[in-house]
Amino acid sequence: MRAMLSVAIATLLSGAVLSGSAFAADAAKRETRIPDQAMATAAKLRETALASDLGYRITESLTTEVGPRLAGSEADARAVAWAQAKFKELGFDKVWIEPVTFPKWERRSESAQVLGASTQPLRLTALGGSPAGTVEAEVVRFADLAALEAAAPGSLAGKIAFIDYRMERARDGAGYGPGGKVRSRGPSAAIRGGAAGYLMRSAGTDSHRMPHTGITRFDEGLTPIPSAALAVPDADQLARLLARGPVKVRMALDCGWDGTYTSHNVIGEIRGSKKPDEVVLIGGHLDSWDLGTGAIDDGAGVGLTMAAARLIGDLKQRPARTIRVVAFANEEQGLHGGKAYAAKHQPNLKQHQIGAESDFGAGRIYAYSSSAPEHAKAADAQIAQALAPLGIEYTPGKGGAGPDIGPFAEKGLAWARLAQDGTDYFDLHHTPDDTFDKIDPQALAQNVAAYAVFAYLAASAEGDFGSQPAAASTTPVGK
Amino acid sequence: MRAMLSVAIATLLSGAVLSGSAFAADAAKRETRIPDQAMATAAKLRETALASDLGYRITESLTTEVGPRLAGSEADARAVAWAQAKFKELGFDKVWIEPVTFPKWERRSESAQVLGASTQPLRLTALGGSPAGTVEAEVVRFADLAALEAAAPGSLAGKIAFIDYRMERARDGAGYGPGGKVRSRGPSAAIRGGAAGYLMRSAGTDSHRMPHTGITRFDEGLTPIPSAALAVPDADQLARLLARGPVKVRMALDCGWDGTYTSHNVIGEIRGSKKPDEVVLIGGHLDSWDLGTGAIDDGAGVGLTMAAARLIGDLKQRPARTIRVVAFANEEQGLHGGKAYAAKHQPNLKQHQIGAESDFGAGRIYAYSSSAPEHAKAADAQIAQALAPLGIEYTPGKGGAGPDIGPFAEKGLAWARLAQDGTDYFDLHHTPDDTFDKIDPQALAQNVAAYAVFAYLAASAEGDFGSQPAAASTTPVGK
Repeated sequence: MRAMLSVAIATLLSGAVLSGSAFAADAAKRETRIPDQAMATAAKLRETALASDLGYRITESLTTEVGPRLAGSEADARAVAWAQAKFKELGFDKVWIEPVTFPKWERRSESAQVLGASTQPLRLTALGGSPAGTVEAEVVRFADLAALEAAAPGSLAGKIAFIDYRMERARDGAGYGPGGKVRSRGPSAAIRGGAAGYLMRSAGTDSHRMPHTGITRFDEGLTPIPSAALAVPDADQLARLLARGPVKVRMALDCGWDGTYTSHNVIGEIRGSKKPDEVVLIGGHLDSWDLGTGAIDDGAGVGLTMAAARLIGDLKQRPARTIRVVAFANEEQGLHGGKAYAAKHQPNLKQHQIGAESDFGAGRIYAYSSSAPEHAKAADAQIAQALAPLGIEYTPGKGGAGPDIGPFAEKGLAWARLAQDGTDYFDLHHTPDDTFDKIDPQALAQNVAAYAVFAYLAASAEGDFGSQPAAASTTPVGK
Repeated sequence: MRAMLSVAIATLLSGAVLSGSAFAADAAKRETRIPDQAMATAAKLRETALASDLGYRITESLTTEVGPRLAGSEADARAVAWAQAKFKELGFDKVWIEPVTFPKWERRSESAQVLGASTQPLRLTALGGSPAGTVEAEVVRFADLAALEAAAPGSLAGKIAFIDYRMERARDGAGYGPGGKVRSRGPSAAIRGGAAGYLMRSAGTDSHRMPHTGITRFDEGLTPIPSAALAVPDADQLARLLARGPVKVRMALDCGWDGTYTSHNVIGEIRGSKKPDEVVLIGGHLDSWDLGTGAIDDGAGVGLTMAAARLIGDLKQRPARTIRVVAFANEEQGLHGGKAYAAKHQPNLKQHQIGAESDFGAGRIYAYSSSAPEHAKAADAQIAQALAPLGIEYTPGKGGAGPDIGPFAEKGLAWARLAQDGTDYFDLHHTPDDTFDKIDPQALAQNVAAYAVFAYLAASAEGDFGSQPAAASTTPVGK
């Protein structure tokens, strides 16, 4: 997951233009409902999914056989091949790929050490997008991003700026808002201050020597500087050393952009029985950062949505609409797969019933919400009712679209949110520790069950969930 | 901590030669007792120590200012200088060093990767004592040491032997017995099988990508092979890959022995009031592995024993005997400091009242025992009584001497064991994650209190705890 999408679509996409009795009449005419038979089938599907280890096995396959799969690396192509083969092996009715082109960033080596009387190594990792470079300089500590942004221009000349901000743990990942900004905005602030290098305490909630990488950006017109995140204990150590006096650090990063690369969104479909050209879109992203094997981010999202669709395909009676699973390319470095999908499929936006991406690990899903407009709220509540036995609360109006769904949701796609418990997510996120052993098979099965129930019911609904091209003035989906 | 010393001295050192009424008369004559006044002072000392953060601050100082301190590295000398300066700063009455010479082993670089269709890096670390070398070979998995030892000679020609044994978690560290043997004996077994390289699942109980290093040995007459430990998740990954078919791995270690080095045991004393030439010996080891900053192993041991002695020195009335704190050199690679101390001080063995080393982290102490012979059992029970309010159980006859005390205990030194809760110890032991943030200040203060109470009371006792040169036939203290 690159970024939390925390702002809900605030306006109902169509209802807002109707009023009074005209609205009531219209609503009655086009009210979306889910047939009782589908609700009964969903209850059985839920139990089947809970008892299945399919999602767990698919996640194991991806993270083991492909391993780390940085976008643009040799493993990117292996991941694309894996996803195509897996869709076919699982009996999906249609499998295809769509090209996604993006700039390629490489990590080659990275190291750092405290110099002088307390010389010792520090564990860090380059931020995605950082240039290469070796900087040997005194470190200036800032408590948070605001403190660095307040530094006078040029005041950090020849120094390494270090933001020592400690990210907070939260079930919904709320701490990643401020934590992620330290990563995305810190380097540019450091450059404005004149710094030669940038260090940050990792945007993570663990206490292991596992630095958290992630993409950063440099504002237009600035000359990028080597930028890296220290593991949390190493940030602690640096802060303790700084409390004792001046500290000089040598950071050496060999990494950088190198041309462009074309990867692919990999798409598989379980075809619908009556309206096969209308789709419920679910998925995760296929790329990962290079440090771990991308289990929680986002092998699980790919595995659990593939499994959910497959279990729907196993039903005696298929739902009316098609279940489309997308394994998105290069989410991590800028939602490239999500943007490419939105651009390509915009002409068919209305044929997309609703979309949901799993990209927040595989902790138990605890809440459900969607962008359902007034005429689909009853159906939305039906979905919530079918999810309730999984311990999922109905929280209408909360949250937003998953990252790769975001660009399409901005164009008007209806979205659902199946909120995963992310209490421990940022212990592992973007670190070497994001590995398959961290996946709880029971929690993953609960995720598969929730996605299966959601997708099946949305695909079975009589009526729509409000997807339609957004007016230019529509409030954009937040990032 | 290099090795668990789990075998108690089974024989009482002197009582065994006495019998019947002769014994009773002798016992009455020389029964060791602790004066009531000392018991009262110990109770106050205990509360003072619990409220003090001195041990925590000393541990912080060592792990921060010196950092990792592999025996023989440049940091070894910095650690020796730190310990001397710290003893002086703390006002110890006498501070000196004693040379300890040992072979020097260096780690320069290490990496590994799976080759072929699932190519991906594996995180490992060379075992201490491993030679350098690059091996590219198929991996043969063994469930445990016995399975590898049963391999036919030559059957592993050109292969990498991999022991996939999972160490068990236990409060007393019992799982390290079999786990540690995989490290100490596995490489020789692999060589006998003809292997070109040796890999093991780390002897650790964590699930992080933190390989656990530690010393290994190669049996006489064998040609050492590159030997390393995989992080636990990487061992999981390798096992999953092997379950799918043959796996070829490239392991590249640059490390090895390089001449000898002379470090020092650093010794500080709080002088006794009446029998200053008799000493109660406490301490920890100053060296650490290079991956972490040696907080639980064994900065805490050094910090808490220094603090305990210093708090005893702060008392209005000093105990009769001297409290001697030893920061032992190079425990990790073969108890070099402990052996040097025993060799040098053997002539004065009887002047050592009793010894105790803290080298099992800084978890709460939950049990007390010692080698006290019959005539000192009442005093031993008094010590246990003074420790009880700290939640410490009296477990006479259990356990053995700490590692660096071991060589001297084999020669006849009386020893005590203040058993630390090691439930989490092997999550961190010998990994990069052994850092100061893992120390719980409250638990460390409890340790300081326990060591202070023990050392103060042993130094105040009227009578001895049984130190005397061991007969040649005495059962050796187990390793």
